[in-house]
Formats: sequence, structure tokens, C-alpha cells
Amino acid sequence: MPRKSPTKAKQPSRLITASRELVDDVALANLILFDHEILDGFGHVSARHDKDPQKFVMSRYVAPGIVTRADIREFSLDSEPLPERGEKHYSERFIHGEIYKARPDAMAIIHSHAPPLIPFGATGAALRPMYHMSAHVGLGVPIFEIRDFQNEGQMLIRSAYLGRSLAETLGDKPMVLMRGHGATSAAPSLHLAVYRAIYAALNARLQMEAMRLGEVNYLSEIEVETCLAGVETTNERAWALWKKEAAGKKR
Amino acid sequence: MPRKSPTKAKQPSRLITASRELVDDVALANLILFDHEILDGFGHVSARHDKDPQKFVMSRYVAPGIVTRADIREFSLDSEPLPERGEKHYSERFIHGEIYKARPDAMAIIHSHAPPLIPFGATGAALRPMYHMSAHVGLGVPIFEIRDFQNEGQMLIRSAYLGRSLAETLGDKPMVLMRGHGATSAAPSLHLAVYRAIYAALNARLQMEAMRLGEVNYLSEIEVETCLAGVETTNERAWALWKKEAAGKKR
Amino acid sequence: MPRKSPTKAKQPSRLITASRELVDDVALANLILFDHEILDGFGHVSARHDKDPQKFVMSRYVAPGIVTRADIREFSLDSEPLPERGEKHYSERFIHGEIYKARPDAMAIIHSHAPPLIPFGATGAALRPMYHMSAHVGLGVPIFEIRDFQNEGQMLIRSAYLGRSLAETLGDKPMVLMRGHGATSAAPSLHLAVYRAIYAALNARLQMEAMRLGEVNYLSEIEVETCLAGVETTNERAWALWKKEAAGKKR
Amino acid sequence: MPRKSPTKAKQPSRLITASRELVDDVALANLILFDHEILDGFGHVSARHDKDPQKFVMSRYVAPGIVTRADIREFSLDSEPLPERGEKHYSERFIHGEIYKARPDAMAIIHSHAPPLIPFGATGAALRPMYHMSAHVGLGVPIFEIRDFQNEGQMLIRSAYLGRSLAETLGDKPMVLMRGHGATSAAPSLHLAVYRAIYAALNARLQMEAMRLGEVNYLSEIEVETCLAGVETTNERAWALWKKEAAGKKR
Repeated sequence: MPRKSPTKAKQPSRLITASRELVDDVALANLILFDHEILDGFGHVSARHDKDPQKFVMSRYVAPGIVTRADIREFSLDSEPLPERGEKHYSERFIHGEIYKARPDAMAIIHSHAPPLIPFGATGAALRPMYHMSAHVGLGVPIFEIRDFQNEGQMLIRSAYLGRSLAETLGDKPMVLMRGHGATSAAPSLHLAVYRAIYAALNARLQMEAMRLGEVNYLSEIEVETCLAGVETTNERAWALWKKEAAGKKR
Repeated sequence: MPRKSPTKAKQPSRLITASRELVDDVALANLILFDHEILDGFGHVSARHDKDPQKFVMSRYVAPGIVTRADIREFSLDSEPLPERGEKHYSERFIHGEIYKARPDAMAIIHSHAPPLIPFGATGAALRPMYHMSAHVGLGVPIFEIRDFQNEGQMLIRSAYLGRSLAETLGDKPMVLMRGHGATSAAPSLHLAVYRAIYAALNARLQMEAMRLGEVNYLSEIEVETCLAGVETTNERAWALWKKEAAGKKR
Repeated sequence: MPRKSPTKAKQPSRLITASRELVDDVALANLILFDHEILDGFGHVSARHDKDPQKFVMSRYVAPGIVTRADIREFSLDSEPLPERGEKHYSERFIHGEIYKARPDAMAIIHSHAPPLIPFGATGAALRPMYHMSAHVGLGVPIFEIRDFQNEGQMLIRSAYLGRSLAETLGDKPMVLMRGHGATSAAPSLHLAVYRAIYAALNARLQMEAMRLGEVNYLSEIEVETCLAGVETTNERAWALWKKEAAGKKR
Repeated sequence: MPRKSPTKAKQPSRLITASRELVDDVALANLILFDHEILDGFGHVSARHDKDPQKFVMSRYVAPGIVTRADIREFSLDSEPLPERGEKHYSERFIHGEIYKARPDAMAIIHSHAPPLIPFGATGAALRPMYHMSAHVGLGVPIFEIRDFQNEGQMLIRSAYLGRSLAETLGDKPMVLMRGHGATSAAPSLHLAVYRAIYAALNARLQMEAMRLGEVNYLSEIEVETCLAGVETTNERAWALWKKEAAGKKR
């Protein structure tokens, strides 16, 4: 079925107060990240509400690859749905609320199980910036060890407490790896969040290859800074492509 | 040709006594596992009959990527087709019958040659749980060495005797690797069997990468248990996605 | 453009004397091998003429991914087109003619640059049978070193002399690796040739992974023999799938 | 949306003086290189103007995967758009102008971030010709270290000065790797540029695999020369395939 079938279900919920543009972009970000194998049946992407910074928007309990604008909901920074409609939600939504609280600069958050990042989280090998597209990796990528925060074997961020703990480990960095789980990133815009997620995963893949080839010459600190100021301003060029690809795909 | 062409051949056989839902799900599981490169032209997936636990349902002799509901047949636990219609069947169907006999908890069985699992079976390197999506791997994955059960060079499970031997090696575990051949898994539901097969293969891929990066910090025993009780309850979210993808694909 | 558009160009040439079935199968084998990344813009697949063993059929000078039945031509065992129509042909067609001369049992020949095989040819690492689907690899895979037969830097089999040299190195084996070039295989049927090409490449991929994991437990001699007598009889199950996939694909 | 929708926007700009064939080929080269994962949302491909060697043609600021003939523009060898229409252009267009100045033989230039090349640039490991399809790699592939030409952390070729520096490092070679960035290649024709870009990346992938397998037997100097004179003359066979694939794809 083509995604554009003009059913009512494909309209945003009437209870949504964020702009139509933001709602569409969050739905689209789900599809783009799915198409680039950053998200699969799991993971989630949110954006801070564009009219009320004390809220964020995110899909209800749906696999990223099939999210439509009709699935987008609003949440308080305590990660509670607004309004409560008795629907099922991602149990790890606390990741989003707690990071939005701790990071006023964060306008979008992605939680993924992107495969190339898992081996770094599981071994503690440092993810470092291989090339100019992934300069943000050079700002530092801490690893979240959930065992430091509870001893019940929990791997999921199913409470405000664990969400806060994750936010603390993230600190002011763009991304945190979660040992045995995945990664979470916070970015100054939704488009940039998507761009960074895609290129962080590619950096990880290339770094694994490069480490087997020889001593890797990573980006220097000044190169990272210069790239962040320069290369990253080009991300709309890619967004236009990704949007067209995602929209044109049969779902 | 779209799969939905309303030909009679696409109706379930009139001789089927299992529910339409189960028949459809087994056909769908074939397609999903094919789309995720767990099955290719070979391998098979079965489910225990939902009205008679002394039977199971599985496709007749057809490559998984093109199985439709019309191909689903019923088998006794001796792995004989019911009724016998002179059709060709998978020579390794004994895998299914013998495991259903030995494991009353098994509601679905998958036999695959999933590529990422083959190197583990062939080297004896232990497959271990890399991340929360693959916690079931942490319950233990024995390796079946067929040379221990015959000395004629047979690699296929073409007899009840070899099926029983495989079932014994599997024991109460969720999966057994078969040296030089593939893997077989048994799960408490068909949906969970599909989910586990996909994430076991991804775990294998990631573990091979991680082992080259450094010392791997695997899930602990308590983490495995907690994930099995928690993460695995989310598999229907992925099933909805996989079903939509498989149904929408041109075959 | 769908491949089935009923243009005259899509009919076999009137000069073809082989059966329509064989012509169709050779065209289809091109597409299947392209879809499985065994062939790309280069490589070729032929079959011995089914009415005259002193001829073979193969595409004219066209990339495998877009070969249709209208491109199939007939050749003498001296690798000359029959009749000569002033068309362009693969410069390496001598591979085919010379092997058909040397190997009366060969009914189909594939010359490919299948990527996973190249590292084996270039390093001399022995390709060995990792699993039951690739048992034919266990019959031995010699490496053709073209430097042993000329010293002009030629890498292509552009003469009957080099074709004979390749045939000699192949001997009675199912496949020969060509250093810095690719591989050539000869099989008792076209369907089996396609099957073996796909699984030889997969074996190569898995063997590279396994060798990094630990000591590999390869198939024994008796296992190879048993698999050749057993597993390989199942290749029509896969052919039915591959045919459907290739036919249904937009080209 | 199919690319062929007959909108005015899909006609070449009226200000274009190059031949329609060249404009179409440059647009097509963008799509082909995108489809083969040489370009993604970034990178660019240009051709020297076929009526005025003091100009080149290239897309305006658009991601390669969605370039159409309507996006192609003309540039002076100082990399300035002709005429200036106030449009946005690739900031790294100086790569093209400066290499066309320095290399009268260059008829086409590709700047990419092809993933398999990045680890070679970042480690300094020598890219060497693994097989006959990639013989041009054997002419030598220097590495451009941008730190040798400025100390501001710049990674992009955003000035004529850096373009000239890159052209100098390239010298008379077919390709230069750019540390932490990508690669740039210059070729005697656009079709050959595309062919070489695709097979250089494949060579890189295969070389990484082969180096883990054992000592690699690379092409010798005379083999490189012979392949350049022979194998490379076959690139139109692949171009016909790639063109058909790119044209038939939904964008």
C-alpha cells in the first residue's frame, strides 16, 4: 500500500498542538532512520515541541519503519502522554523527557540500536572521528554502564531515574553509547540529529575497518571544530534527498 | 506478480484443520525470514497445530521466499504428511517432529542456514549475548556435531534418529548450532521464533565485529533473565512492521 | 521498462537451433547471477547446445544484468559465432569453447568476478568447504596463474591457447580461481552451475569470517561426497525461487 | 514520482551551451554513482565542456541521488558559475576547476566520500590493484594531507588555493585519496571516470579482505599496463547496464 492513501488515519491527531511541519518531520525522520538501518522495529526519535519547550513530540508505540503523522503524540517532560488516552507508549520514553530537561539546547533526540555502534559500546573501544562527515563524534562519546545505576539486570531505561542517569552520562556531549543496548543522541535540530545518527554509524563501520588496516589518523580537535562549523551546515542537501527517498518508497 | 492475485491456489488447502490465522502466520513467517536473510532457497519454519498438539503445520517442498498459504500442510509428530497426498516434502522435516515430541513447550521451530551463524558452528567459538535484543542467546547455544551420531558423512537430518539426536543436543535451550550446516531453534510462539531468529543472526554479526575490537562485555546472567522477561515482550511491535513489509512486497 | 514488453527484439534470434527452453534458461541464468552479485556488468554464462554437443549457447556482447533471450547466440567449440553476423562478442569466449572441448561432462560454464572469490585467488589461501551447501568446493579449487602461460601482462583469456591453459588448470575440478581476475566453473547442468556459483561465493564470505574466529572445522571428504549425492539434488527448489524473483523484477 | 514526468523543470536550462548528450550523461553519472554507493547525499561529478575546454559542467547544489538534467550548470575553470544566477553551488567546486586547469587530459572529475576508500586515506595503507578491473589503481594513488597546506583545521577544498594544492598532490595520477575526507579522480572520459570510481571502491573492499587472508599478490606493472589497454576498453558494456538501471529506477 502506498503511504499516501488519503485515509483519515493519515491525518495528524486533532489533539496535536505542535506545528504540522514538525509532526511531519518527526514521522519522516522515523522513516529515514529506518531506511538507513539506524532504527529497525525498535528505537525512537523525538523533537522538542515547537510552541512549548516543556513538551516533546514522538510516535506512539509503533515500529519506526511504519510510523505516519497520525501516530505522533505529545508528551510532557516527565514523559507522560498529553493528553492521556490510554494508548500504549514506548517504555523507554523517559530517555527523551529526562534529556530534554537536562539539555535545554536539545531540540531532537534519537534512541537507536544502530548495529555498527553496538560493538563499541560492548567493548569500550573509543569511537573516534574518522572523517569530516562525522566530526561530531570528536566531541566525545561517553559510554553508559547501566550496572552503575541498578543491580537488577535492567537493560532498558524504563524509569525517570534511569533516564536521568543516562542524561548525566551524556552530559553536554552529542551522543552516549549504551553498553549492550545501543546509543542515544541529542542535537540542536531534528534534521541535524538525523544527519549525525547516519554518519556516526558510518564512522563506526569505517573505524572498525581502519583499525584493522593500521594506525588511524583521526580528525584533530581543530578539525572537529572547523567541520562542525562548516560541513554540518550542508545537512539540508542530504535531507532533501532522504525526504524524497522516504516519501517515494512503498510502505 | 503480486502475491494477492485472487487465484484458488492462494487459498489454504481444504485438508487443513489448523486455524486460518496460524496458516497465514506460517506462510508469512517464511516470507519475513526470507526478507531478513535468515532463510534463502532453503530452510523451513513450522508451528505446532493450534487445535491438536500432536501435529504441526509447515510448507510443502517450496523455497521459503515464495511460500503462500496454499503451500501449508499438516504433519504428524513422526513428520509424516497428514493426509499423505504423494507430494514432495522437505527431507529434513524430522527436525520438526522430533523436537515437538521432546519439547512440549515448543510452539514453533525454525531450521535455517543463516549465514552469520555458520562461522560459529564451524569453529566452535561460543555465541554469546552481545546486546539486549538477543538475550535468548544467553540461555546457551549448544553445537550439534553430526559425526557423533553416524559415520556416513551425512549432514542432513533425514531420519527420525537424527532428528532425535538433534533434539537431545538442543535439550531445553532455545537454539542449537549445527556444525557445517546451520541452526535450529524452538520457541514458545511463532512470532517470538521469528524475532529470535532475526536477532540471533544480528548478534552473531555484531559479536564477530566486537571480538576484533577488544574484550567483549557480554550480558550477565541476570541481564539475560531480565531481558527475557522485559525486552522480549515487545516483539509484536516488530511483527507488525515485518508483516506489513512482507505483505507489501512484490513476489 | 518491464522485461516482458512484447517486442520482436525479445524473441530469440531465428538463427538459433537450440531449444527455446535452453535459450530462456541461459538468459535467466544471467539475470539470476546478476541479482546474486556473482556477475555484474561483466562475466558470462553459457550452456552446451542441447541438440549438438559441438556447440554452446551464450549471450552476445551484453552486460549480464540486461541479457534477454534475444541476445543469445550459438558458438562453435572454437568459440566462433555461428553464423558469423559481424556482431561484437565477449573477448574471453575462449574460456567456454576450450573447457567444453576438454570436459565432455561440462554442460554449463560460468565465468565471473564474484567479489568474495577474488581475495582467495589473490592470496592463494585455500578455499575450503565450510558447510553443506558448498560441498562442491571440497572437490578442490585450483588457482590459475596466467603468468605461467605468457609474460606480456595479459590478464584476459583472449585466445584459444589461454583458454586451453585455463582448462588444463581446471582439470576435472568444478571450479578454478583465476589470480587477480575471478573464477570459472563447469557443471553437469546449467541449474547446478548457477546453484554452485552462488554457494561457492557464500562459502568464501563465511570462510573469511570463520578464519578470524578460530580453527575451522571443514567438511570431511566423506561429507563432501555425501552432500554432493544428497544436498545438491535439492537445487531445483532454489531455482524455482530465483526464476520467480528474476522474472518479477523490473529491469 | 518517476523521473520521466515531462515537466519543464526536467529540461536542461536554456543557458546551457554544452551538448544535450553531455548534460544528460552528467546527470546520469550522478545517479549511477549514487546507486553504487560511491556518492551519497554528498560528492559531485563534473565533465569538461564538450565545446569549450575552458569550462566544465556540473550540478548545482543538489544531492547526487536526485540530480536531473535541469540541475546541470556551467562553470569557468575558476569554478565560477556561468552565468552567475545567484544560485547556491557546492563549496568545493574548486576541486574541479583547478584540476581541469592542471590536467588538460582530464575530461571528467569525481569527488566522493566512497566508504571503502576512507580507511586507506586515514591509515596511509597503500591502495594497490587487486584485480584486473581496478588496474588504474596501479598507476599510483597519492594521499592528500590537507594539514600540509593550512593549519586552520579546514577539511574542505573551499578555495582555489586548496584546489590547486589538491591538483598538485594528484599530479598525473588517476586518483588522490584525501585523508579524513574521501577521494578525487580525474579521467579521460566521463564513462571511464564512473567505471573507475566503482571499481576502485570495490578494489578497496577486496583488498581489506585479502590483507586479512594472507600475502596479497597484486597486479604487476606490466599487468596494469596491459589491463589499461585492454580491460578498460570494455567499460561501455557496463555503462549500458548502469544507464538502464538508473533510468528505470523510481526516484
